[in-house]
Amino acid sequence: MAMKAVVFRGAFDVGVETRPKPIIRDQTDAIIRVKLAGICGSELHMYRGHQKTATGHIMGHEFIGIIDQIGSDVSKFAVGDEVVSIFSPVCLRCWYCKQGLTNRCIEGVAFGTQKLDGGQAEFVRVPFADGTLQLVPADLDKSLLIMMCDIFPTGYYGACHANCDQSLDSLESSVVVCLGCGPVGICAIATARSKGIKTVLAVDSVQDRLDEAAHLGAIPLNLSKHNILEEVKSRTYGRGADAVIEVVGNPAALQSAFELLRPCGILSSVGFHQDNLPFTGLDCYLKNITMNFGRVPVRTVFNDALQCLIENQKALRNYVTHELSLDEAASGYDLFEKRVARKVILRVQALD
Amino acid sequence: MAMKAVVFRGAFDVGVETRPKPIIRDQTDAIIRVKLAGICGSELHMYRGHQKTATGHIMGHEFIGIIDQIGSDVSKFAVGDEVVSIFSPVCLRCWYCKQGLTNRCIEGVAFGTQKLDGGQAEFVRVPFADGTLQLVPADLDKSLLIMMCDIFPTGYYGACHANCDQSLDSLESSVVVCLGCGPVGICAIATARSKGIKTVLAVDSVQDRLDEAAHLGAIPLNLSKHNILEEVKSRTYGRGADAVIEVVGNPAALQSAFELLRPCGILSSVGFHQDNLPFTGLDCYLKNITMNFGRVPVRTVFNDALQCLIENQKALRNYVTHELSLDEAASGYDLFEKRVARKVILRVQALD
Repeated sequence: MAMKAVVFRGAFDVGVETRPKPIIRDQTDAIIRVKLAGICGSELHMYRGHQKTATGHIMGHEFIGIIDQIGSDVSKFAVGDEVVSIFSPVCLRCWYCKQGLTNRCIEGVAFGTQKLDGGQAEFVRVPFADGTLQLVPADLDKSLLIMMCDIFPTGYYGACHANCDQSLDSLESSVVVCLGCGPVGICAIATARSKGIKTVLAVDSVQDRLDEAAHLGAIPLNLSKHNILEEVKSRTYGRGADAVIEVVGNPAALQSAFELLRPCGILSSVGFHQDNLPFTGLDCYLKNITMNFGRVPVRTVFNDALQCLIENQKALRNYVTHELSLDEAASGYDLFEKRVARKVILRVQALD
Repeated sequence: MAMKAVVFRGAFDVGVETRPKPIIRDQTDAIIRVKLAGICGSELHMYRGHQKTATGHIMGHEFIGIIDQIGSDVSKFAVGDEVVSIFSPVCLRCWYCKQGLTNRCIEGVAFGTQKLDGGQAEFVRVPFADGTLQLVPADLDKSLLIMMCDIFPTGYYGACHANCDQSLDSLESSVVVCLGCGPVGICAIATARSKGIKTVLAVDSVQDRLDEAAHLGAIPLNLSKHNILEEVKSRTYGRGADAVIEVVGNPAALQSAFELLRPCGILSSVGFHQDNLPFTGLDCYLKNITMNFGRVPVRTVFNDALQCLIENQKALRNYVTHELSLDEAASGYDLFEKRVARKVILRVQALD
């Protein structure tokens, strides 16, 4: 049987093509009939050609749908269940999964890559369904739920590593900077505010993003209008920020994060970095810095992060600016890449 | 009045000279009649000429003695009290001190530098005596107490940042590597073992240091005999260490620390680094690494670290291999620099 799917053809070129409907390969698989699929900022690395990759795979690692078929070893779900997926499979069997470090599951290849077709399609095969899927919760709008596949937990993780999970006394006086107010930054800001950080300084150059950050209670700082270091110092008696959440993923952002931090501050980096680190060992020693890098264990933080998203759903209700059909995917990538759209969701009408 | 003091004259050249006895400059000062002074590994950076510095200052940031004179604003001590000093002054008044981040006290210049004469002398001026000094505890040999000025808290801090302070369940199965078994490494190993880490792998190339590490319950790995990465992997089902404590302070050690870590591992670096970081942003992202750099807030950890040292005092009783007179300081530096001595202490007989 055939289906429609959004295929990566090369830089700035995605399009809907006809592909075979996926089938169960392992008895831990499920086949999902997709209802909603998101376009994620991390896909823009590939779309823009920065992240070199072969072509021909189906895009998308954010999706919600109905279980259409199921392998005999899937025990937690049944055909007909409405589920939301994590951006990469979670086997639940390896040492990392058993420690809760599901971000480093040994089976964890991302959906929407050469290694695993993604969810911007009418159907998608989900390996290790018991670990990779979660039932759709009742109390959250589904267009926001798509944020739980990747960006909300990622922002949540960035905020928690910036010590937003500590005692309230300290939180109230903490000054946390979020560098980058794209989708993940907005999720980090929402989390930091929910966790009790009064002063979150939101840094970006796109006014629409800063407006959204301000809407969530952050203090917006426009890179093109403000001297960010001076703004941070003026709010911290000249010391610098207690923590910086860096979600951008380039050396300039990392260098700025480092400079904005006070001694003994925390650098929480969830951006995808590909270059050298723009600071030295001496810098690190003298700053007495703590740094966290890398991707979130979505499954481990899922329930806490979901709670945080539910708390913020009213403030985020206008966050998804564009809902398009699967056929309009190319236009969705274009709008998102040009920063016209905050978040694009593809509504999929699968044939039986 | 004159006194004898160990003066830095240039690389590989220290010697005893006559200097004026220090006087109270600020009313928060105390003048200490020194009884014992240690030579610290970090002074070898200067001694060996790696750390360029002007000459003429009095060496030493490890010392114990009797309060000889006291400023009118010192409230916690009296003339005649026997005290041990922290390696750099702690004002107790600045924002950092109030947060317990005494390692970044705004008044915190190290003893034994151009900015502040040190304690390898008959007398030493101690700024901010109330914060910088601690009463000598009753239940510890003084030649071991000298380790509390710097190296034991530094090793303690390195071990605690390697997550040795978490729940026992996890500690028992954790594999922690200590890279470098000089004085600070030995203190880190003692702490890690006291905190319940069963498997501490101690890495060095000096057999005497490895013997001491083994004496404290670590598994010694000789750099010149073992493939360290293979040894670590063979004990961790191929994953790598849960945490690495790096006390060496050069890029090779830092690179090795990075390579020995499993994904989501912790790199705790207390070594003094002056070079570029030998790993990239992509390395950090893919390793999902947590890193801590820098110096210990001695005052904040003092009591806990002291308890740990007291627990280990029997095992460490032979740790100080050389007790010399102040006049023999040059010989002490030479023995320590050549790794003939594990730890050198200068016994000072001050004149009145």
